[in-house]
Amino acid sequence: MPELRKDPLTESWVVIATERGKRPSDFARPSSSGRSGTCPFCYGSEGMTPPEVLAYRDGSDPDAPGWSVRVVPNKFPALSPELEREAPRRFGPYQEMSASGGHEVLIESPEHDSTLGTHDVRQVEMILRAVKERLIDYRDKGRTEYVQVFKNAGPAAGASLEHTHFQMIAVPLVPDVLRDEMEGMSNRDGRSCRLCEIVKFESGREERVIEKPEGYLVYCPFASRFPYETWIVPIEHSGHFEDASENDLRKLAPVLRDTVGRLESAFEDVPYNLVLHTAPFGAPRDGFHWHIEILPRLTIAAGFEFGTGYFINPTPPEMAARFLRAASGPAAGQAQGG
Amino acid sequence: MPELRKDPLTESWVVIATERGKRPSDFARPSSSGRSGTCPFCYGSEGMTPPEVLAYRDGSDPDAPGWSVRVVPNKFPALSPELEREAPRRFGPYQEMSASGGHEVLIESPEHDSTLGTHDVRQVEMILRAVKERLIDYRDKGRTEYVQVFKNAGPAAGASLEHTHFQMIAVPLVPDVLRDEMEGMSNRDGRSCRLCEIVKFESGREERVIEKPEGYLVYCPFASRFPYETWIVPIEHSGHFEDASENDLRKLAPVLRDTVGRLESAFEDVPYNLVLHTAPFGAPRDGFHWHIEILPRLTIAAGFEFGTGYFINPTPPEMAARFLRAASGPAAGQAQGG
Repeated sequence: MPELRKDPLTESWVVIATERGKRPSDFARPSSSGRSGTCPFCYGSEGMTPPEVLAYRDGSDPDAPGWSVRVVPNKFPALSPELEREAPRRFGPYQEMSASGGHEVLIESPEHDSTLGTHDVRQVEMILRAVKERLIDYRDKGRTEYVQVFKNAGPAAGASLEHTHFQMIAVPLVPDVLRDEMEGMSNRDGRSCRLCEIVKFESGREERVIEKPEGYLVYCPFASRFPYETWIVPIEHSGHFEDASENDLRKLAPVLRDTVGRLESAFEDVPYNLVLHTAPFGAPRDGFHWHIEILPRLTIAAGFEFGTGYFINPTPPEMAARFLRAASGPAAGQAQGG
Repeated sequence: MPELRKDPLTESWVVIATERGKRPSDFARPSSSGRSGTCPFCYGSEGMTPPEVLAYRDGSDPDAPGWSVRVVPNKFPALSPELEREAPRRFGPYQEMSASGGHEVLIESPEHDSTLGTHDVRQVEMILRAVKERLIDYRDKGRTEYVQVFKNAGPAAGASLEHTHFQMIAVPLVPDVLRDEMEGMSNRDGRSCRLCEIVKFESGREERVIEKPEGYLVYCPFASRFPYETWIVPIEHSGHFEDASENDLRKLAPVLRDTVGRLESAFEDVPYNLVLHTAPFGAPRDGFHWHIEILPRLTIAAGFEFGTGYFINPTPPEMAARFLRAASGPAAGQAQGG
């Protein structure tokens, strides 16, 4: 059974996936399973995944072809819904607890070769609606504190399957990064949110702005850790992504599609991680400002980064924004049409 | 000029290497430059690096062949000794400061094909002595707070040159990770160091111990972030690595060589980062316990890790220790002979 263990020096938690138990020989370079084998995320392979927990279909049967977006439990969950939630136990100088939670895969489209930057805008809207629906389900069940919604694209960004997908991992604690961001967002005067302040500052200066579509700001953060790092932030303060209205998601869909499309057109087969930071379920609405971070993996975090926590970014965000403003996704022409 | 910029949400600093200014086309997959071209770290290529700041030689001229360990400034420093140290400046909601510091490369050996796990033990002793000497120089100059000594081995661990080397980056601030570890090491009762406590606990239990050579403990930490992560910790509490005696380093050399050798024999061409965590120059001796962290890069930190700060480790450290105990480096037979 997977465990959560706390590092007593940094106070950070680690997921120890005990049942995977990778021996040295198991680390022989895995090749990204694509067309060569049978893709478990294509039509006709529904039986290769655990039964779906959500799917948008045109009247077809569950776990059969005919879906447009499909959410299934991860076959090898990092955190498991089958484990009881429990308080941390002491063990000598350490703490540990069961890795209770959840781990799901959101298959973005039945099209094996489509990407987040080339999907039809309506497809992206459905993906966002599915994320919202799953977040609401986790929130209402009350067994987890936070769901990390993310996407690994490309082997260099940790993707083991080629067919485009998101993942959602539900955790029984508020993660360190979220805790740090929540603290960072609360200004010392206790009134305005610091991300609101940043959105205002960046909107007025332009040099790090990629685009200002209705309702959102797309920009390269001042202290970007990764070259061409891009954030999408709603202009209106909003804490929980799952509170977004249908209209908010309809506006977000082309923004997300085209932002990823710009990256995909600037870099062939760009490896990237996408992270949705939304308020932990128990956090007050005004204490957090949800946003999407897109982290291209063009450099490798190494000894200096792990030793210090400081990243080295070889591309100033002002230069990154200039290049990304000039780039447009393969589907950019359809952006208005969605 | 490189800059340090502070993320206003996480309060973490980022090094923006402004003068590198990598455009999209600069990220075309770099190939690790090895034998194919001329290696700048081999005998005869001394003119390809900036002039050496330290070298152990048998009477030969500086910047000529004949050295056994050689330290040179990095040609493209992430932090620069030519920048004035300054206090952080405010810029809207942000903070920034010049990236003053230093960035050096320690060429471990003239042998292109030797590795840290196959060097002669006397070679490793010289490497450790050179690290100590450079730390003392930085400390005495008083312009930096901390020097991150690290090693990237293999392209997947961020190494751009094949010829085995360490790097040292001096920073004008105490890094976040060090600050966290210092806080974590101080027990709430204010008496003993928590890493001392861990050393005692692990020595008595064996399950995560790889080896107990004289003066050191070699083990896989309880909350290892990386599969086969291995720490080398001096048993006696010791804050600053640069205070280690000649005798301490003589004892450490075979331990370091054989620990890396075990990994190298368990995994062919294992990519790894090695990090020396030593007390920041201004920290009191009893507030920190120096140690070496060896972080194999067999998995890829991805969206979940960057989103939450939690790592997923597919190999329980107890299993890792069992395999590493059974492994021995290619040069293990010589370990006693050094």
